Amino acid sequence: MEPGTARIAVDLLGGDDAPAVVVDGALRACRADPDLELLLVGPAEVADEIIGALSSRDRGRMAVRPVRHVVGMADAPARASRIDTTVRAAVAAVSEGAADALISAGASGATVTAAALGFGRWPGVRRPVLVASLPAVAGPVVLLDVGGSLEARPVTLAHHAMLGAAYAAVAHGIVAPRVGLLSIGTEPGKGDRTRRAADPVLAAANLPCGARYVGLVEGYDVALGGRADVVVTDGFTGNVLLKGIEGAYAMAGGPTGAAPRAAALLGVAGTAIVCHGAATGDDLASGIALAAHLHRSSATAAISALFSDLDEVTA
Amino acid sequence: MEPGTARIAVDLLGGDDAPAVVVDGALRACRADPDLELLLVGPAEVADEIIGALSSRDRGRMAVRPVRHVVGMADAPARASRIDTTVRAAVAAVSEGAADALISAGASGATVTAAALGFGRWPGVRRPVLVASLPAVAGPVVLLDVGGSLEARPVTLAHHAMLGAAYAAVAHGIVAPRVGLLSIGTEPGKGDRTRRAADPVLAAANLPCGARYVGLVEGYDVALGGRADVVVTDGFTGNVLLKGIEGAYAMAGGPTGAAPRAAALLGVAGTAIVCHGAATGDDLASGIALAAHLHRSSATAAISALFSDLDEVTA
Repeated sequence: MEPGTARIAVDLLGGDDAPAVVVDGALRACRADPDLELLLVGPAEVADEIIGALSSRDRGRMAVRPVRHVVGMADAPARASRIDTTVRAAVAAVSEGAADALISAGASGATVTAAALGFGRWPGVRRPVLVASLPAVAGPVVLLDVGGSLEARPVTLAHHAMLGAAYAAVAHGIVAPRVGLLSIGTEPGKGDRTRRAADPVLAAANLPCGARYVGLVEGYDVALGGRADVVVTDGFTGNVLLKGIEGAYAMAGGPTGAAPRAAALLGVAGTAIVCHGAATGDDLASGIALAAHLHRSSATAAISALFSDLDEVTA
Repeated sequence: MEPGTARIAVDLLGGDDAPAVVVDGALRACRADPDLELLLVGPAEVADEIIGALSSRDRGRMAVRPVRHVVGMADAPARASRIDTTVRAAVAAVSEGAADALISAGASGATVTAAALGFGRWPGVRRPVLVASLPAVAGPVVLLDVGGSLEARPVTLAHHAMLGAAYAAVAHGIVAPRVGLLSIGTEPGKGDRTRRAADPVLAAANLPCGARYVGLVEGYDVALGGRADVVVTDGFTGNVLLKGIEGAYAMAGGPTGAAPRAAALLGVAGTAIVCHGAATGDDLASGIALAAHLHRSSATAAISALFSDLDEVTA
C-alpha cells in the first residue's frame, strides 16, 4: 500500500448488478485500505446501506453525493439514463476537487463520454483509450485499447504505443517497457492492411520511458506475456480479445481475477476507472484499489506530461 | 468412430517441431483409429521412422510419397520452401485420389495457397476460410474465420455465416445452428463500422440447415458458448482471439486440447486441415482425426453444395 489518502468517487448505480455489487465492492475496498475515503454518488438509501455496514470509526471515511433518479414514463430504457446521471455527477465531483478519481461499472461508452466532456481531453487525443493490465507469467501485460476508441489508423496505434509505454512505466514501474503490435504472426509483414501500415510507424515512433518497439506479437502473448510488456491494438480487437481471455479463464476455472475487469481511461484530464458491466464486488474493489494507486502515483498527470512532450515531437 | 476407411495425407515437414511431432502425431492417430490409413508425404527416412514403430500388421496401413528436399545455397530460408514442397505434394495426392484429405502444420498461408491452387476454389469464394471448433460448456462453438482471409467486408462476413452454419450442421450435427456476429457488445449498433454494416446483412442472409442469426455476441461467448453455435468474424480478429484463448488456457492450466490447434479449410474443392505451427503430437493426432471425420461425413461436398445453392440466391 502506498501512503496517502485517496478519495474515490463511486458510481452506485453503474453495473448490471448495481447497486448490490457496488455496495459489496465499496465495503471490501474499505476493509483492504485504511487510507481510502469514498464519495458515494447515487441514491441516499444505497449510500446508507454501505455506511450502515461500517464501524462508527470507518463511517468518517464516507461522504455522500445524493443523485436523484426520476423514473417516469419517458424513461423506458431507464437504466442507461440513470447510470449516465450518476457517472456525470462522479466526474463533476472529481472536477470540483471533492474526489481524486472515479470509478463506474456503468456502460463504458457513457463513462468515456462523461469523462471526456467533464475533464477535457489531452491535446492531441481524439478519443480517450481504455487500458487493461493482465497478469502474465513474468508480470503484467498492458493491453490497449480495449474499447475506448475503435479507430485503427496507424497514427492512433502509435499514440497507443506512447500511452501504453508511459502507463507501464508509471503505473507498474516497468523499466524500459517492450512494446508490441498485436497481429496474426510475428514475422514482419504479417497482418491486415492496418497492421502492415502501422508496423513501420511504430518502429519510428518516439516512445517514452526508454520503451522500445519489439515488432509484432500474437494473441498468446497477451495472456502469457514474455514477448512484450505493452501490446497495442485497436479498441475493437482489444475488447474482443480481453473478453475472450476472460471467457477462457472462466471455462478453465483458472485463477479468479486473472482477467482484469477494470480498465484505466487515458487521454482525459482526470483519473477514471471503467469497470466491466458484469463486475462482481471483488472486481469493484480491485477497480477502487487501482483508482487509489493511480491517484497516489500521480499517474494521470505523469502520463499526460510524457505524452504531450512526445506528441509535440511527433506532430 | 464412424465406419469407413479414411486415407489422410500427412505433411511430414510441416510444423515448428517437425518432423518429430508429426511422427508422434501419426503414431497416436493410428493407435486411436484402426480404419485410418496414412499417406506419409516427405523424406523417406522420416516415413521409415513411423513405419518402423508400427506392428507388421499396421504397416499395411501406411503408404509413402517421398518428397526430396534439396537444401542448397539458394535455400537460405530453406524451411519455408521445403514445407511448401511437401504441402503441395500432399494436395496433389488428394487431387489424384491417392488420399481423401490432407493435414499440414506448416505455414498456414502456404497450405491455404497450395489447396486453393491445387483443388480450386468453390464458385463465389474469393479466399478460403479457416474454421475452428472450440469446446464450450454446452457443446462446440464454431469460429470463423481464424486466419484464412483477412477481409472484413459485410458480404464476406455473410459468406462466413453461411459456411459456418453448414459446417456446424454437417461436421457437428448441430440442428438449426444459432449464428452470431462477433462484436464488443450485444445491443444493436455496437461495434466498429464493419460490424454495424454487417449486422443487417447477416440478419437478411439466407442461412442453410435451419440456421438463424441471433445478432451480436462477444469474446466470452466464443470460449463459454451458450449464446451462439457459430461465431462469425474476420480472419484477423478471429486469429487474435483464438490465440488469446489458447494463451489463457495455457496460463490457467486448463483442460488440454481446450483451444483447438487444428482448423478446417473451407472454400476449396478438397478436404484440408491446417494445424498450428506449434502443434504437439496430440494436436496433430486430433487434426488427423478431424480430417478423417470430415471425409467420412462427406463434409466438404455437403457444405459446398449447401453454400452454392445459397450463394446463387444471394448473388
